[in-house]
Amino acid sequence: MKILISLKTGNYYYYNEQGEDYHCKEGFITESDLLSGEKLLISNTGKKFLCFNANDYDKRQKIKRGAQIITTKDLGYIIARSGISKTSFIVEAGTGSAAASILFSQIAKKVHSYEINEDHFKISQKNIEKFELENIKLIFGNLGDYIENEKEVDLLFLDMPQPEDIILKDLNAVKKGSYIISYLPSITQVVELFKACSQKDDLYIEEVSEIILREWKINEKIARPQFNKEIDHTAFLTFIRKL
Amino acid sequence: MKILISLKTGNYYYYNEQGEDYHCKEGFITESDLLSGEKLLISNTGKKFLCFNANDYDKRQKIKRGAQIITTKDLGYIIARSGISKTSFIVEAGTGSAAASILFSQIAKKVHSYEINEDHFKISQKNIEKFELENIKLIFGNLGDYIENEKEVDLLFLDMPQPEDIILKDLNAVKKGSYIISYLPSITQVVELFKACSQKDDLYIEEVSEIILREWKINEKIARPQFNKEIDHTAFLTFIRKL
Amino acid sequence: MKILISLKTGNYYYYNEQGEDYHCKEGFITESDLLSGEKLLISNTGKKFLCFNANDYDKRQKIKRGAQIITTKDLGYIIARSGISKTSFIVEAGTGSAAASILFSQIAKKVHSYEINEDHFKISQKNIEKFELENIKLIFGNLGDYIENEKEVDLLFLDMPQPEDIILKDLNAVKKGSYIISYLPSITQVVELFKACSQKDDLYIEEVSEIILREWKINEKIARPQFNKEIDHTAFLTFIRKL
Amino acid sequence: MKILISLKTGNYYYYNEQGEDYHCKEGFITESDLLSGEKLLISNTGKKFLCFNANDYDKRQKIKRGAQIITTKDLGYIIARSGISKTSFIVEAGTGSAAASILFSQIAKKVHSYEINEDHFKISQKNIEKFELENIKLIFGNLGDYIENEKEVDLLFLDMPQPEDIILKDLNAVKKGSYIISYLPSITQVVELFKACSQKDDLYIEEVSEIILREWKINEKIARPQFNKEIDHTAFLTFIRKL
Repeated sequence: MKILISLKTGNYYYYNEQGEDYHCKEGFITESDLLSGEKLLISNTGKKFLCFNANDYDKRQKIKRGAQIITTKDLGYIIARSGISKTSFIVEAGTGSAAASILFSQIAKKVHSYEINEDHFKISQKNIEKFELENIKLIFGNLGDYIENEKEVDLLFLDMPQPEDIILKDLNAVKKGSYIISYLPSITQVVELFKACSQKDDLYIEEVSEIILREWKINEKIARPQFNKEIDHTAFLTFIRKL
Repeated sequence: MKILISLKTGNYYYYNEQGEDYHCKEGFITESDLLSGEKLLISNTGKKFLCFNANDYDKRQKIKRGAQIITTKDLGYIIARSGISKTSFIVEAGTGSAAASILFSQIAKKVHSYEINEDHFKISQKNIEKFELENIKLIFGNLGDYIENEKEVDLLFLDMPQPEDIILKDLNAVKKGSYIISYLPSITQVVELFKACSQKDDLYIEEVSEIILREWKINEKIARPQFNKEIDHTAFLTFIRKL
Repeated sequence: MKILISLKTGNYYYYNEQGEDYHCKEGFITESDLLSGEKLLISNTGKKFLCFNANDYDKRQKIKRGAQIITTKDLGYIIARSGISKTSFIVEAGTGSAAASILFSQIAKKVHSYEINEDHFKISQKNIEKFELENIKLIFGNLGDYIENEKEVDLLFLDMPQPEDIILKDLNAVKKGSYIISYLPSITQVVELFKACSQKDDLYIEEVSEIILREWKINEKIARPQFNKEIDHTAFLTFIRKL
Repeated sequence: MKILISLKTGNYYYYNEQGEDYHCKEGFITESDLLSGEKLLISNTGKKFLCFNANDYDKRQKIKRGAQIITTKDLGYIIARSGISKTSFIVEAGTGSAAASILFSQIAKKVHSYEINEDHFKISQKNIEKFELENIKLIFGNLGDYIENEKEVDLLFLDMPQPEDIILKDLNAVKKGSYIISYLPSITQVVELFKACSQKDDLYIEEVSEIILREWKINEKIARPQFNKEIDHTAFLTFIRKL
């Protein structure tokens, strides 16, 4: 996959190297130009485009979306704060569109991902196929029915509206000292999660945080936060330590 | 390493399993208790402590600090936003206390880290030894003198006050489509970086962001941002695409 | 002026009591209903509307806009932080659409407002007329040419791109201990302002701040920051003390 | 009252013009210097101090504190967002240390402030005396017992842990179209307030917001948010419209 950035509009275009010219509303660029390796291309209408190879971040942004995907700002904090690495085993539910699953499996050793919605499950399967990942297993089913079969989990990630359903189960699948992380849009859901955790003597809520991303506009004369740019709320992240 | 959390004060204590009892200002806990695997321990003074294994996140927090370390919130976004994974090669300068280096090498395939300050270099060497990482090379020297020797870099991370010194060099070591990321505390430094980038036709500034972490206090009755908790500014992250 | 809020859509409608029925895209409401004093009105299409009197805040939101208006969050901090009250004399430039001018004159004793753009000046004149304020004087001209004629100013408010032009003038019009406040979108402008102030021994920059407003969605089950709601950057406020 | 700022430390000192020299830990300054009107004073130890008259903002910061005082950022938004002006009548409970009461009475026509804590009531009385305000009445008692006696209120400000106690009363004292504003530290309290409001057909929750103040460090070379500076949470402001 290649990326084109229009110098005029700043728009991004994604070219999938299908053996064709690339057409967009700012004109078309020939296949031979696209494959030339040049960094500056010119369309038939004379518009200039920067051209370069897409990296894994770019590819993850272009996955098909069934469910809302977890944002990069939140995924980054989950990874760095949970202590996972390329030796880790991650279990998550639900899969959603597999945005988190894909990043997790690019970083960790093994990923099991549970999804109960059939449409989301199918979209996720297709998204994962494109990334040719062999260390991820998608399971169509309810994590609550399977959690006791899992073992030596380094991170249990719960992206579901009622994580209490899992929290109240036996969680010995999770290693002592590892985290269960919950992703919840509303703070009232976190209060409910807190109540469930207080019933378990092997869980300790260590941190509830939100991550706010603020983008800036910079050039030689201007330096200010972007106008008309949402600093959008996504979710509250709860870090629960397994004792 | 084990972690103890005092139920009374909420304090964290780190026990290095040295074959001794653990003494802290809230009393002492016997070695046999510490190694028992019990999750609730009681000190000689009757205080209760949660006890569990430290994970990689905990260990990274306890490294010796020469230079200021890069915070988890920023490291997370750098990892998730840059598209790196366990197949990636990362080059960084300066090493600082190696907090970023250690996380990078736990996630990526290979890391080269340059440091010009001898004290920081020595502290980093010791920090890295403790993590028994074999895919990281610490280089005592100026990245500017070596950058042209590096090849196929997936992420060039610049934690230095004047990244312009590197930006103005030949950066063909960095793969097309990969990022150079700069970490700068002051927005005026980002303006200088912008000026340097405009002189290079193979660089494109894609994003300047800051990551803000907000911690919450939650229990059954209360849900509010923490009082007396700094939401501290750390740095502006600049994502520069290599064309 | 009366306000109607549609219970179905949450939309706000403003009725100017012109002796007519009120028509909107959700139907019409008869004049006799509108003047009845009832709090719940029903349109011809059966839609329910809350109805109540507009207050001064509402009226200020409906002024005609030539220039961008200063937001309520910023105006509030300017008022409370500057120490002005109903005995104060405020001088400002430029008038813009007079949003700040109107609020200032509703709170302070006397306001002089300078504007060099003729279109803005005319719009401001009309906006001010509607509020029937007698303690505000709009001046068509450059504050820099008049500042030495002003006396005993409690607040000098500069909403202009280059406040340095005023800062470098003789500012004895401003009382000792009072503030000059500048409203600038870009932090690079604040750096320029800082340079100008350092040339003056009667000015001291006390604070540079930005005010961020975050709106929440609350109901019986949900409590979270609003989705799709900009926390938009407006400006940096610089508080300069006159010595 | 005069303010002294040490050029060396940046510390602020407040001189009450008691006919004496001013002693601080950076030395002393003679009374004749303090009354000279000079803007730059030198202490007996050779330290330089800026000197100028305190304004009303400074004086409000120095009131005696019994209860926590409401911050300037929140007070500013309350004033600008509620539509009050020098013709307004404000009722508030509780008085606390009278920080809000004093600012309200410096801006509005008349203020009634209720306080049930005797210590806070006495401190508030003394604080108000110093400001020589004649349009404010402090009442020792529970607003709930008196609200039906009040009339034509332009703003009802509730700084109390359970505003539901007032909300559930007859609120015809508040003008149609005016606001009841509640100041609550925890979002769970706002949810309770929401439940109480839903029982009343003459109340409409229009906005729940928090105001975040971010201070910057600026000089000729540096422009960044302050380090080690709390962006402290204070409270959620709920704007309830009286229908």
